[in-house]
Amino acid sequence: MGEFLILKSGAEARAILGGFDPVGTETIALEHALDRVLAEDLVASEDLPPSPRATMDGYALRARDLQGASESVPCYLKLVGTVAMGSVFPGRVAAGEAVGISTGGVLPEGADAVVMIEYVDRVRGDEIEVHRSVAAGDNVIRSGEDVARGEIVLASGKRLRPQDVGALAAFGRTEVRVFRRPIVAVLSTGNEIVAPELVPDPGQVRDINQYALASQVRRAGGDPLLGGIVADDADLLRARVSTLLDSSDMVMLSGGSSVGVRDVAAQVLSLLGSPGVLFHGINVRPGKPTLCARIGQRPVLGMPGYPVSSMVIFDAFVRPLIWQLGGEAPGRDPWPGRRRARLSRRHASAPGREDWVRVRLETRSDGLWAVPVLGGSASLSTIVRADGLVMVEAGSEGIGEGDEVEVLLYL
Amino acid sequence: MGEFLILKSGAEARAILGGFDPVGTETIALEHALDRVLAEDLVASEDLPPSPRATMDGYALRARDLQGASESVPCYLKLVGTVAMGSVFPGRVAAGEAVGISTGGVLPEGADAVVMIEYVDRVRGDEIEVHRSVAAGDNVIRSGEDVARGEIVLASGKRLRPQDVGALAAFGRTEVRVFRRPIVAVLSTGNEIVAPELVPDPGQVRDINQYALASQVRRAGGDPLLGGIVADDADLLRARVSTLLDSSDMVMLSGGSSVGVRDVAAQVLSLLGSPGVLFHGINVRPGKPTLCARIGQRPVLGMPGYPVSSMVIFDAFVRPLIWQLGGEAPGRDPWPGRRRARLSRRHASAPGREDWVRVRLETRSDGLWAVPVLGGSASLSTIVRADGLVMVEAGSEGIGEGDEVEVLLYL
Repeated sequence: MGEFLILKSGAEARAILGGFDPVGTETIALEHALDRVLAEDLVASEDLPPSPRATMDGYALRARDLQGASESVPCYLKLVGTVAMGSVFPGRVAAGEAVGISTGGVLPEGADAVVMIEYVDRVRGDEIEVHRSVAAGDNVIRSGEDVARGEIVLASGKRLRPQDVGALAAFGRTEVRVFRRPIVAVLSTGNEIVAPELVPDPGQVRDINQYALASQVRRAGGDPLLGGIVADDADLLRARVSTLLDSSDMVMLSGGSSVGVRDVAAQVLSLLGSPGVLFHGINVRPGKPTLCARIGQRPVLGMPGYPVSSMVIFDAFVRPLIWQLGGEAPGRDPWPGRRRARLSRRHASAPGREDWVRVRLETRSDGLWAVPVLGGSASLSTIVRADGLVMVEAGSEGIGEGDEVEVLLYL
Repeated sequence: MGEFLILKSGAEARAILGGFDPVGTETIALEHALDRVLAEDLVASEDLPPSPRATMDGYALRARDLQGASESVPCYLKLVGTVAMGSVFPGRVAAGEAVGISTGGVLPEGADAVVMIEYVDRVRGDEIEVHRSVAAGDNVIRSGEDVARGEIVLASGKRLRPQDVGALAAFGRTEVRVFRRPIVAVLSTGNEIVAPELVPDPGQVRDINQYALASQVRRAGGDPLLGGIVADDADLLRARVSTLLDSSDMVMLSGGSSVGVRDVAAQVLSLLGSPGVLFHGINVRPGKPTLCARIGQRPVLGMPGYPVSSMVIFDAFVRPLIWQLGGEAPGRDPWPGRRRARLSRRHASAPGREDWVRVRLETRSDGLWAVPVLGGSASLSTIVRADGLVMVEAGSEGIGEGDEVEVLLYL
């Protein structure tokens, strides 16, 4: 029983995983907004800048007063004051007058341009000599030129980069509505698994998955919850997953990929609630026995037991799911770092199966090569030594030696 | 006075910034190791796996017992037990015998291979029929085959990815020595700058840099310390920077880029300690008036006042400095995300000057285009709308319309 899985294609699995909704929203302080996902549009509440400002150090004046000014035929203006930073010049610039101004200073009434300090000599105490003409608007940023009031500066679903946090500050948004970070419980199953702080008896192995998967969850913007280790026992597993579902938005259990253990996980997931198991098995290597259930609104994933396989499945299928639970707008590139390279050894793949090949990058005299890391999924070192993955599409029967590939980089 | 800067080339500035040492180390728990930088080599304390294990579900046996076995001429073996997960088979596999084993189970004494369950039929209670021969070592991972005892698994200076955290767990490293995250104080200067929670009076602007730069520091693996806002006053600024230097590893102050303010910052930095100012001005656009001092072992950076300029300078020059203070091995790519695209509008650059152009990516019928974002450094929206930067090397006089460029992506 359960010996043969009915495999979903990678595309089918992704479509099913695409059917979960964001977990909710919360209001947080600006200081914590970095890398959070906006749950509201940031609409400009005012013009930026609110009034015209100098974009250079120099003198504010009327452009027409400098008509024809040049190096050889300077113009002379009367200096009537200086714009103090942080306040507004109290007077008005009249014809033939100029006011000193620093970058960012508010353009005084009457002035329509700034001439840069480089083109000006101070002749006497209150007279300046200008060696260049300017057009109205030169070295000035108009009110609303940066952002006009009412403009959508950042749309809901946007993950906030440093400059976006800056934009929130610019509009006085010291609090902002964002999507909650999904809480993702991670637990390891298997009679042979012991906590890393223990010295394994013969036949036991230290738990790797809980820490590796929790790290991947954190990188994906989720809050990992360490769910511990459970023996291969349906009742114990069911109780633990139930408890974890009470305090999380998603559960990932990783277990031995053996048939018996897989059966336990599938049984448990079908008993936990409806609709239950959505798929069991993806036509992918490594990581075929991956299991996905939905319990109410929550995804529960049965990840493969080998750390290599569960990490690859996470990268290939789970990361976009966590983004989606976290409210992120669709379309984010799961692999922003890519390098073109040539594959150093042919890789054969069964048609219909999607393969993920661990590779090292090697710079040789004839360019960049992607060198498949030797060793099977049972070898953790294969993924530790890897710089990234090469994906072999389901439609492909493989990649030839020397063929160009795109390496999806581990960052 | 101070009106003309003696500019360093970008390369000179980077060389100077490359002269700072890591800030120190600390021991942390495995749970917090993700994205930290190792300050010790992780040397394998034992073989991984410690004993040979099955890599498939099936039967452990002696390969020579299956010589000549095939679909039409099966071999028959006596089933003498099953390897329990988490322990070791108590007996020994003799000639003509087999023991059931699951993936990850320890290979029993006497056995040298595993035949997959797919090729086996159970004939009677204690007899199995095998339809395939195996070679010694088939479906078995040898002890030390993944990692041999004494091997360096992760070298000091490595930033820990999820799989590296997994490797720490595998070797029972629940504590690990890492470099401290550099504490980087960020403060804003300028009489016109007010906190984001305030409604600016005419002539005032809300503080953007403190939040944008702190976000960049966090992304770079540093711990930002919000240092507040200081007016353009040498004594006040000196006092604040002094205080911040007591509780941080680096200080970044950003100020108006006006001549007067720059002079205050340069004065203050030369008075704070020796060796003092290392450079004042980089031949780069935007961000020319960038200032760098060393006070004892600590860098103090005077960043440009415009948020756009200070963010670009951070990306172009400061991020690698923070990595270095954080102990990271040299050579990390500051721009892992890159896309080739064609520049939609020519960009002229003064020879000797390094330009950083903010661009949006646009997919058109004829491919990917990098569209320079209109608006000067005074416009925050230019960097909010940008998907990345194009760097124009100091040796180049510009890039023509339609020329291929590499877009360095904001992630």
